[in-house]
Amino acid sequence: MHALVYHEPGRISWDTVPDPAIEAPTDAIVRIDTATVCGSDLHILNGEVPEVRPGTVLGHEAVGVVTDIGPEVHRTQPGDHVVVSCVSACGNCVYCRERMYGQCRGGGGWILGNQIHGTQAEYVRVPFSDHSTHRIHDGMHHEDAVLLSEVLPTAYEVGVRNGHVSPGDHVVVVGAGPVGLATVITAQIYSPRRTVAVDLSSARLERAARLGADAAQLPGELLAELAEGRGADVAVEAAGNPDSFVLCTRAVRPGGQIANIGMHGRPAVLHLEAMWRKNLTISTGQVDTFSTPLLMNLLTAGRLHVTDLVTHQLALDQAEEAYDMFAHGPETGTLKVVLRAERNGTHGTGGDARATLG
Amino acid sequence: MHALVYHEPGRISWDTVPDPAIEAPTDAIVRIDTATVCGSDLHILNGEVPEVRPGTVLGHEAVGVVTDIGPEVHRTQPGDHVVVSCVSACGNCVYCRERMYGQCRGGGGWILGNQIHGTQAEYVRVPFSDHSTHRIHDGMHHEDAVLLSEVLPTAYEVGVRNGHVSPGDHVVVVGAGPVGLATVITAQIYSPRRTVAVDLSSARLERAARLGADAAQLPGELLAELAEGRGADVAVEAAGNPDSFVLCTRAVRPGGQIANIGMHGRPAVLHLEAMWRKNLTISTGQVDTFSTPLLMNLLTAGRLHVTDLVTHQLALDQAEEAYDMFAHGPETGTLKVVLRAERNGTHGTGGDARATLG
Amino acid sequence: MHALVYHEPGRISWDTVPDPAIEAPTDAIVRIDTATVCGSDLHILNGEVPEVRPGTVLGHEAVGVVTDIGPEVHRTQPGDHVVVSCVSACGNCVYCRERMYGQCRGGGGWILGNQIHGTQAEYVRVPFSDHSTHRIHDGMHHEDAVLLSEVLPTAYEVGVRNGHVSPGDHVVVVGAGPVGLATVITAQIYSPRRTVAVDLSSARLERAARLGADAAQLPGELLAELAEGRGADVAVEAAGNPDSFVLCTRAVRPGGQIANIGMHGRPAVLHLEAMWRKNLTISTGQVDTFSTPLLMNLLTAGRLHVTDLVTHQLALDQAEEAYDMFAHGPETGTLKVVLRAERNGTHGTGGDARATLG
Amino acid sequence: MHALVYHEPGRISWDTVPDPAIEAPTDAIVRIDTATVCGSDLHILNGEVPEVRPGTVLGHEAVGVVTDIGPEVHRTQPGDHVVVSCVSACGNCVYCRERMYGQCRGGGGWILGNQIHGTQAEYVRVPFSDHSTHRIHDGMHHEDAVLLSEVLPTAYEVGVRNGHVSPGDHVVVVGAGPVGLATVITAQIYSPRRTVAVDLSSARLERAARLGADAAQLPGELLAELAEGRGADVAVEAAGNPDSFVLCTRAVRPGGQIANIGMHGRPAVLHLEAMWRKNLTISTGQVDTFSTPLLMNLLTAGRLHVTDLVTHQLALDQAEEAYDMFAHGPETGTLKVVLRAERNGTHGTGGDARATLG
Repeated sequence: MHALVYHEPGRISWDTVPDPAIEAPTDAIVRIDTATVCGSDLHILNGEVPEVRPGTVLGHEAVGVVTDIGPEVHRTQPGDHVVVSCVSACGNCVYCRERMYGQCRGGGGWILGNQIHGTQAEYVRVPFSDHSTHRIHDGMHHEDAVLLSEVLPTAYEVGVRNGHVSPGDHVVVVGAGPVGLATVITAQIYSPRRTVAVDLSSARLERAARLGADAAQLPGELLAELAEGRGADVAVEAAGNPDSFVLCTRAVRPGGQIANIGMHGRPAVLHLEAMWRKNLTISTGQVDTFSTPLLMNLLTAGRLHVTDLVTHQLALDQAEEAYDMFAHGPETGTLKVVLRAERNGTHGTGGDARATLG
Repeated sequence: MHALVYHEPGRISWDTVPDPAIEAPTDAIVRIDTATVCGSDLHILNGEVPEVRPGTVLGHEAVGVVTDIGPEVHRTQPGDHVVVSCVSACGNCVYCRERMYGQCRGGGGWILGNQIHGTQAEYVRVPFSDHSTHRIHDGMHHEDAVLLSEVLPTAYEVGVRNGHVSPGDHVVVVGAGPVGLATVITAQIYSPRRTVAVDLSSARLERAARLGADAAQLPGELLAELAEGRGADVAVEAAGNPDSFVLCTRAVRPGGQIANIGMHGRPAVLHLEAMWRKNLTISTGQVDTFSTPLLMNLLTAGRLHVTDLVTHQLALDQAEEAYDMFAHGPETGTLKVVLRAERNGTHGTGGDARATLG
Repeated sequence: MHALVYHEPGRISWDTVPDPAIEAPTDAIVRIDTATVCGSDLHILNGEVPEVRPGTVLGHEAVGVVTDIGPEVHRTQPGDHVVVSCVSACGNCVYCRERMYGQCRGGGGWILGNQIHGTQAEYVRVPFSDHSTHRIHDGMHHEDAVLLSEVLPTAYEVGVRNGHVSPGDHVVVVGAGPVGLATVITAQIYSPRRTVAVDLSSARLERAARLGADAAQLPGELLAELAEGRGADVAVEAAGNPDSFVLCTRAVRPGGQIANIGMHGRPAVLHLEAMWRKNLTISTGQVDTFSTPLLMNLLTAGRLHVTDLVTHQLALDQAEEAYDMFAHGPETGTLKVVLRAERNGTHGTGGDARATLG
Repeated sequence: MHALVYHEPGRISWDTVPDPAIEAPTDAIVRIDTATVCGSDLHILNGEVPEVRPGTVLGHEAVGVVTDIGPEVHRTQPGDHVVVSCVSACGNCVYCRERMYGQCRGGGGWILGNQIHGTQAEYVRVPFSDHSTHRIHDGMHHEDAVLLSEVLPTAYEVGVRNGHVSPGDHVVVVGAGPVGLATVITAQIYSPRRTVAVDLSSARLERAARLGADAAQLPGELLAELAEGRGADVAVEAAGNPDSFVLCTRAVRPGGQIANIGMHGRPAVLHLEAMWRKNLTISTGQVDTFSTPLLMNLLTAGRLHVTDLVTHQLALDQAEEAYDMFAHGPETGTLKVVLRAERNGTHGTGGDARATLG
């Protein structure tokens, strides 16, 4: 088969590689229909995730069709259309039993496109399939469904839920890339009063306004607004940057919440001298994907509007180009770039007109 | 009357000052029977709390007798024996209505011995008396009751509750001074499996073991033990030191809690590069004293054993000496130093033999 | 002044009565601009609330202007436009400190139009004004604001919050009168997947569909639908009827919630033989009005659409007619009937065209 | 092998039956070392659980040694000493993923000794072994460990946790049989102020006092005490009797909790006319056994003292006699009757002197 292979920092290519096969009784093989590229993929490409070995197929987000299952797979059948979750979960360890699947100690966690071959490929082997794939509802658009692999659960669990977004809240999201804007969207589930997206990129701020943020601000505009009120109830760091984190700690009111989503490569300064007495809560986290079924239900019920998160659609074998487009997102406003297998007879939205929205 | 007056960094003295009087209709005047010294008093003495003006009477912990009340005080009468809470609360602002009294926006908060004259005196004016004093139960020892002014609610609210100490938890408390050991004691309310006190002072570690910690460890011993297991469920910073804070972030397992009690004068390093994916929660806070009635009930019911937190008892006019003893706590193992008014006919524990336990 | 006076079961009249005056230092006097009629008023008229003495002015919902205040009122000034809360709260007792104002032990609770004179009058004396009135935002329609006196907080607190309505839930509301439909509306704050209103009245079911219920069903239709799925996540009793309560207990899935709002005059059968092992939670409650500021914020932010709950608007002196119209709600579909003082120069929505929507 | 077989209402006997064998790949076979008898076994014997078919081996509580496992069992090995949980859990259905194992929709739930052969036998087949057995800690007494099969998790989950027992609470437990007294014991995990056991049996009240209840009262004594205060914070029904349930609803204060543990055969009267405005919460539930590992940890750490719940110890083949003794518990004070396999070389507490405590 063909797949996007990581070779060394700065170098990936669309190569011919061996087909995956069942290795453990809980494995499933999925033929990829739709994949996408994540910010963490760019970190890998930049050599910032050294545990990824050369030769690894990248990618941890996909929708596809199950083609084979091991003898201990009970919840899916070959032929099922599934979301492949970015987190593989044994379902049995102490963390999985508490639904903290991202911290799985039974051999799972974020391993796809990281410790094992991933989803930017024609086929992928999914370990622990019963806890790591989700059958998609009939009629779901694959471009929506693929957002359930990672970006929507990350935004909802690590941003909205960890941040305890509550009715009437003033919510600030620092970083208006895909996960930041997915946070703006999923925060609406709890009816905040005001949701503000903050970024340095005018292209992204413009998109934020289109996707439903009540305001799209530069950091200075945020601080100026907050100085007049009592501060935000919740600030979500969705940029992975120490300065953004500090901005979040300055933005919240006493008793407020700072929820970190960003993937950080460096420490931040924690101004305890200013914060020790302010009753603040800071959370960090990697997605656990416990919310995937809920988010799929809300999508199907028409309660979440995510289509505009996908700005471009390419063919699967254009994966390298997708990385390039995505890397320029801050300048161009590109958000999620979806990769589609071009195949006759695909189920779902193959003929959809929703390509290249950017 | 006489009172302990702050003059400038490094200088306090027991002076003659004007008697306090009712200034606002919600004020009460309390004749001090028992006061004590807090770590924050030492910070003031050291000039680290610049908002404290020269001439201020220090102290924010006391038990005494109400001698006068304003016309809007409804819950106490002259003659009542009360705990004076370290937090004064208007009871009416948006924070007070959510029981976040320490963040009061109506003129309260931690003001005693800070923005207004405090409790290390023969009399104190207590603003917002209805929300800032608590009648003590008959027969309570004043040395126990005075711990309800600050140290017990701080340990319980900011350490135990913010840290979500839960049954079966492995709890680590870094800093074995009075508030740290009060955290060890109040953590038992939720039946942890193991509570470990950590300090650099052998005198304090020895006390910790006597007060009921399951182990008393140096930082290196803590990390060695944790390296073999999965880490602590909860780590409480009770030292006010950047290194102690970092130690806490290293001590907890994925999904764990770090609760900061310490009063910090400098920033700490937040190792987001190691923490971003670990599902951690960090809390900061100043005490709100919402738990004072609960803790008083548990004391009366014999469910909390706090007596050993008081190691020395002096006369009120020995306040300067008390500061000195308390400042040497890390070397000597001194914990709370109680100051008693020496007065004939005092109610309660006047003739008690429990002096100078150290 | 004039006011609606209760004389004996079945008899009320619009009478001349003495003007109210400040009696306690925490009192405010409010000149009524807008009042309304509640289901509990009908219970009083029917003689089902025997503690109401003849001669009592009825009503516990109103918007008006403060005309006088006692010396201990600090949060409002004469001239302020306020919502009068159905619950008067001392703010100081053990229940008020936990925001359970409806259970106030300091002389408050639901006393207006019940133990003391109420709001269906030209003026009302409001005890404990600081905790019992809320200044309305500039530009708010009084017909919306008057819903904050009781029906919206009741629906939200006793139905939605007690019922733990959560994202993705299937919610059933039994009883499609004003409080039931307010529950349908406020449930949307938490993004349920499906909200179903149930009633025997076709007029009410028709309104429910117009107000945003995903389905409006007869009890048999409800049970038929639920028999095919796993049952509702939350069932709210908003009819005050034993059969409706039993219907709720049959409607929910294992692990589900039954939230009772209805005011009951008789016991219900609790089928413990069927329920003991189903992990159900049943809640009862009277509104505490802690959510009034939140709901006002959501109204102002355009996140709650409540206008259609008011179907008729009459003059204040038509109060008797309002009772009559409201009593026939089940047949006619009448929901809230608003009473407006007809006065020159009223602030707000006096000239509004939104009259008699029914 | 030998086992206790249910034949028809009123008739059980210790018979020779076929040995169990692995039927499904997730099964384990356990050789019983210690079993016990539950109140629900008596209900079965009395014919009150009609779904139990004649010929069924009874019992759902046991400790034993794994002798065989199916190919999909990953967490235990032959030779492991395990607690057999009363609930079998597929681990994969929507309820199991939320740790509501007792409501398992994948073929589990309470099936042992009910829908399939149970544990009052020399061997038992345990379905879904990975989610239905727990390895016991080295050195645990089997008489303590067998209480983890059902009685302790039931008391803790359905009584203490559903009842939200909180620090400082006044807790009332109606029904002082084994599960009621296990509730008294496990309630201490949350440091209530006062725990009262209520029963009609003087033998049981006497035991309650010995096991640590702060008071042991007849129903009339309870109501007399509560009439003087504000009522209990939590009332737990542990008798399975409609009158006991009504007593609980009368015992709690406004805002209180009623947690039903009892297994009911008949409806109760729910006095909504008195309860609708009291902010009460009623919970029902069957144990889910999510707390078994926690309770085992607390037992090992010496934080739970349960030994006195076992009053008698018989040989496994005396099971019929055990039913008889247990059935007379209300008169004699008999609590748990433990059945021990008499076998040379058993691991654990075989030679223990703790027999026949009653």
